Amino acid sequence: MKYGEKNISKAKLEKWLNPHPERDYTIEIDLPEFTCLCPRSGYPDFAVIKINYVPDKYIIELKSLKLYLNKFRNQSISHESATNQIFSDLNKLLKPRRLEVIGDFNPRGNVKTIIRICL
Amino acid sequence: MKYGEKNISKAKLEKWLNPHPERDYTIEIDLPEFTCLCPRSGYPDFAVIKINYVPDKYIIELKSLKLYLNKFRNQSISHESATNQIFSDLNKLLKPRRLEVIGDFNPRGNVKTIIRICL
Amino acid sequence: MKYGEKNISKAKLEKWLNPHPERDYTIEIDLPEFTCLCPRSGYPDFAVIKINYVPDKYIIELKSLKLYLNKFRNQSISHESATNQIFSDLNKLLKPRRLEVIGDFNPRGNVKTIIRICL
Amino acid sequence: MKYGEKNISKAKLEKWLNPHPERDYTIEIDLPEFTCLCPRSGYPDFAVIKINYVPDKYIIELKSLKLYLNKFRNQSISHESATNQIFSDLNKLLKPRRLEVIGDFNPRGNVKTIIRICL
Amino acid sequence: MKYGEKNISKAKLEKWLNPHPERDYTIEIDLPEFTCLCPRSGYPDFAVIKINYVPDKYIIELKSLKLYLNKFRNQSISHESATNQIFSDLNKLLKPRRLEVIGDFNPRGNVKTIIRICL
Amino acid sequence: MKYGEKNISKAKLEKWLNPHPERDYTIEIDLPEFTCLCPRSGYPDFAVIKINYVPDKYIIELKSLKLYLNKFRNQSISHESATNQIFSDLNKLLKPRRLEVIGDFNPRGNVKTIIRICL
Amino acid sequence: MKYGEKNISKAKLEKWLNPHPERDYTIEIDLPEFTCLCPRSGYPDFAVIKINYVPDKYIIELKSLKLYLNKFRNQSISHESATNQIFSDLNKLLKPRRLEVIGDFNPRGNVKTIIRICL
Amino acid sequence: MKYGEKNISKAKLEKWLNPHPERDYTIEIDLPEFTCLCPRSGYPDFAVIKINYVPDKYIIELKSLKLYLNKFRNQSISHESATNQIFSDLNKLLKPRRLEVIGDFNPRGNVKTIIRICL
Amino acid sequence: MKYGEKNISKAKLEKWLNPHPERDYTIEIDLPEFTCLCPRSGYPDFAVIKINYVPDKYIIELKSLKLYLNKFRNQSISHESATNQIFSDLNKLLKPRRLEVIGDFNPRGNVKTIIRICL
Amino acid sequence: MKYGEKNISKAKLEKWLNPHPERDYTIEIDLPEFTCLCPRSGYPDFAVIKINYVPDKYIIELKSLKLYLNKFRNQSISHESATNQIFSDLNKLLKPRRLEVIGDFNPRGNVKTIIRICL
Repeated sequence: MKYGEKNISKAKLEKWLNPHPERDYTIEIDLPEFTCLCPRSGYPDFAVIKINYVPDKYIIELKSLKLYLNKFRNQSISHESATNQIFSDLNKLLKPRRLEVIGDFNPRGNVKTIIRICL
Repeated sequence: MKYGEKNISKAKLEKWLNPHPERDYTIEIDLPEFTCLCPRSGYPDFAVIKINYVPDKYIIELKSLKLYLNKFRNQSISHESATNQIFSDLNKLLKPRRLEVIGDFNPRGNVKTIIRICL
Repeated sequence: MKYGEKNISKAKLEKWLNPHPERDYTIEIDLPEFTCLCPRSGYPDFAVIKINYVPDKYIIELKSLKLYLNKFRNQSISHESATNQIFSDLNKLLKPRRLEVIGDFNPRGNVKTIIRICL
Repeated sequence: MKYGEKNISKAKLEKWLNPHPERDYTIEIDLPEFTCLCPRSGYPDFAVIKINYVPDKYIIELKSLKLYLNKFRNQSISHESATNQIFSDLNKLLKPRRLEVIGDFNPRGNVKTIIRICL
Repeated sequence: MKYGEKNISKAKLEKWLNPHPERDYTIEIDLPEFTCLCPRSGYPDFAVIKINYVPDKYIIELKSLKLYLNKFRNQSISHESATNQIFSDLNKLLKPRRLEVIGDFNPRGNVKTIIRICL
Repeated sequence: MKYGEKNISKAKLEKWLNPHPERDYTIEIDLPEFTCLCPRSGYPDFAVIKINYVPDKYIIELKSLKLYLNKFRNQSISHESATNQIFSDLNKLLKPRRLEVIGDFNPRGNVKTIIRICL
Repeated sequence: MKYGEKNISKAKLEKWLNPHPERDYTIEIDLPEFTCLCPRSGYPDFAVIKINYVPDKYIIELKSLKLYLNKFRNQSISHESATNQIFSDLNKLLKPRRLEVIGDFNPRGNVKTIIRICL
Repeated sequence: MKYGEKNISKAKLEKWLNPHPERDYTIEIDLPEFTCLCPRSGYPDFAVIKINYVPDKYIIELKSLKLYLNKFRNQSISHESATNQIFSDLNKLLKPRRLEVIGDFNPRGNVKTIIRICL
Repeated sequence: MKYGEKNISKAKLEKWLNPHPERDYTIEIDLPEFTCLCPRSGYPDFAVIKINYVPDKYIIELKSLKLYLNKFRNQSISHESATNQIFSDLNKLLKPRRLEVIGDFNPRGNVKTIIRICL
Repeated sequence: MKYGEKNISKAKLEKWLNPHPERDYTIEIDLPEFTCLCPRSGYPDFAVIKINYVPDKYIIELKSLKLYLNKFRNQSISHESATNQIFSDLNKLLKPRRLEVIGDFNPRGNVKTIIRICL
């Protein structure tokens, strides 16, 4: 059984109650070890995922976020789709006051791509 | 007796009179040696605490600020709560015209977190 | 037959459907190995080309973009014209919501030039 | 006789006529070798002083500025007061259209402080 | 005959037609090897000259710009006057839509000066 | 079928004839996107693999080297074993005059490890 | 009960069998979050501990190393003694072919100290 | 006619007499804009070529060196062969007391290669 | 009374017993805030003083070292003499197995000087 | 009268007595504002001159060294000759125990050159 099969099933994004919902503040999270598979070539892609948000009722639980991103490891997905999916999943779960997701991908064929999505 | 037990009791944030309340100016303070304990794992956490404010009637006394932050050394507290507590304590004491507190934490499990609170 | 003669004929910019046209997001692309020929001296010029855009219906296909830029390799063209031509070609093909093209050229005769075009 | 006793008496800030008062332009000055004495501990403090201004009728003469700052060498003065005094002296002498003075002090007891005053 | 006497006479700023006057775009030029003489001490001064502009009908011809700046090599001129003169000469010749000239001078007597002029 | 199952079977290190065996020269190769699985925690590990060698009769074919390293993606293996295995496989295949393999791993639990093996 | 009291009792340095004792290779370990207490002032000290060694029969188990270093958190110990003790403990446990321990301490009172011990 | 056809025929490495053959000294030359074509893929390759030598009777004429390197622009040649050919040509022409040629190539397919040849 | 008059009299370099004389190890000390007066111009000079030594029977006490260096604040002394005097005083007091003193002075009149003395 | 005519006549390298001839120590001097004229093109060249030496009976007087280097400002001289002449003049005057002169020239036509001469 390859990596993830067992883990992926239980890797679910979890939310916690925001301890200070009365106040606007920003949480910046950097996850520098994202990897997935290129849907065209089948080769691995690598990226830093950056998440900046102003929480409303919930904050993201960090360990579940890490496990959630690990699930992409053996998934074939484009730069644009991966970044958009992370954005959508976080937005749906947390309904934050502000949300930005950045997928900063390592160069492929001398071409470097960064995807930024902001609510 | 462990560190802090004697010191903590007298580590109280002190304020001084602002020598130039007639003027808006910014004081930026960097404290690169903050440490506390992770409430989940019990392991130490490390951060740089940055405080930027525009004083009104009072400025913070720097030595008392340093001793106040040292009190977190053996306290179990999350990133979000530590940063919010520092913000609240300073805000209550100084009632500054503007206040920003940033908790820039070292990565844990490949995940780096920065908390920014701004008044 | 020199480089490009065979390749250039088929190096056509291709567009793909934007998978998330319902959302404004930015795609930043860095291509650090652009080279063309100086129309005055005949000597090679080198540049980093940076493209930032908010896609509407289409996104650029990255491999065709790379091959398209390779076509400039043996073309005599000034800094200003090269950057403007890339901007015009991308703008016409993609009709993006926002487009910025930057030609960041290596110094020539101690003079460094950067051209920025923004829609 | 210690340093400054002879020099300080003649270290007076001088102004020159602005050669281009018809135009708004900025003069940025960095003086990286400021030192004074801490009024609490008596130990030396070190700072970079940065001055940015838009001159009106006058510009500051640089050598007199340097000698003026050297006068703080053996003076006991806090971070906040030193920066405010430099601001006030320059403001009074030059009556500039805009003035910013920054005192960027070396850390003391792990605490780094930057004072920014802006007109 | 010293440097420049022969060259200076023919070092005239030249303008070319802007190939894309229908579009606002920025041209940034860095010239890191500017030198002139200090009018007070007679010693050499060194600077980086940065020119950013949005061309209207004309763009600057780069080689003539370089030769024009070389003319300052044996001229006695202050930081403020040199930067203002370059600004005035370019503004008069090109009548650009936007123009910024920055003279970023090496430290003299521990004092670093940057002059910024913006239209 | 997970990544690698199809590819791994054909990912075999290939050697080419050294075009200049009459001369000692060094080939340095950096592969910044190595990943494997931690045998203890099951979580992904990331490293830069650096290979420096003086070829004798053979040089390594670069594409086969890249595919060979991709095979570790879903393998559970410690830092020390991964680096030693790469060293052994290259040494056996190329019989180089000199060989150094470095596994420069990202921190785990605040601990950064670099393994260097040199022949 | 303060931090460590429960953990310290079981924080024992563990050794594993070196998987490749037939070969000389280097293991470099960086632990950037060391902290102890200054025996003079009682204030916290911070350091990066670097360990480089060539293993003989044993390698250090990384988690036990981290827990071992955490034990210094509430201990009063000088820069020289802390670094020497780590060196002695590792040397005794591992009997490595080569061992270097570096204690790179944050400045105290503007004085930065680095202790290097090499076998 | 493509670039180089006219220029290449006259691009011959030239040597000058060493003005100080009585003394051992080093000349380091960096040429950051080398480009050739990959013999496998046909795509452009980019490198920095570094030449360090101790001249004997001759030194290299720099302009002829630059034109000589420009000749590789449309040539299909591997990293190893290009670096070795430059080394051989310089060695034959200059017969220097010491010679090192380094070809520091941009990554291809995530793999970065540096070739070092030293006499 | 100027700075130092009271302090200097009691600022005496102190030595402590080396806790590990049985072992050769290096102590590196950086003191980035050294200042004295130029014997020619009377203006302040600034330097970083670096001390690296292998202790024999004694180690230097850090606070006394800092106070000792503060004594130079109002002393007229050249770069060479200041560095040599620090070297001589430490060498005489500690009789270390190895000693290096570096005086890394800020530029004066565009000229940067570093003095290195090694036993 | 152009720069230097009056000054050059009196710009003579001066030597002072070495205050510590009984000891071997190194003096490193960086002069980042060297400029001369290219004998081929007539255009200005720029360099950093670095001088490292172990003095015997004499040390160089820094102001005379600066004025001596300023004399090259309007002189036509190649990179190799300028560096060799500085080396010869210093060697003849100081007869130092060790001497290294480095001429680190700004790129010309994309080619960067560094000349190192060591005794």
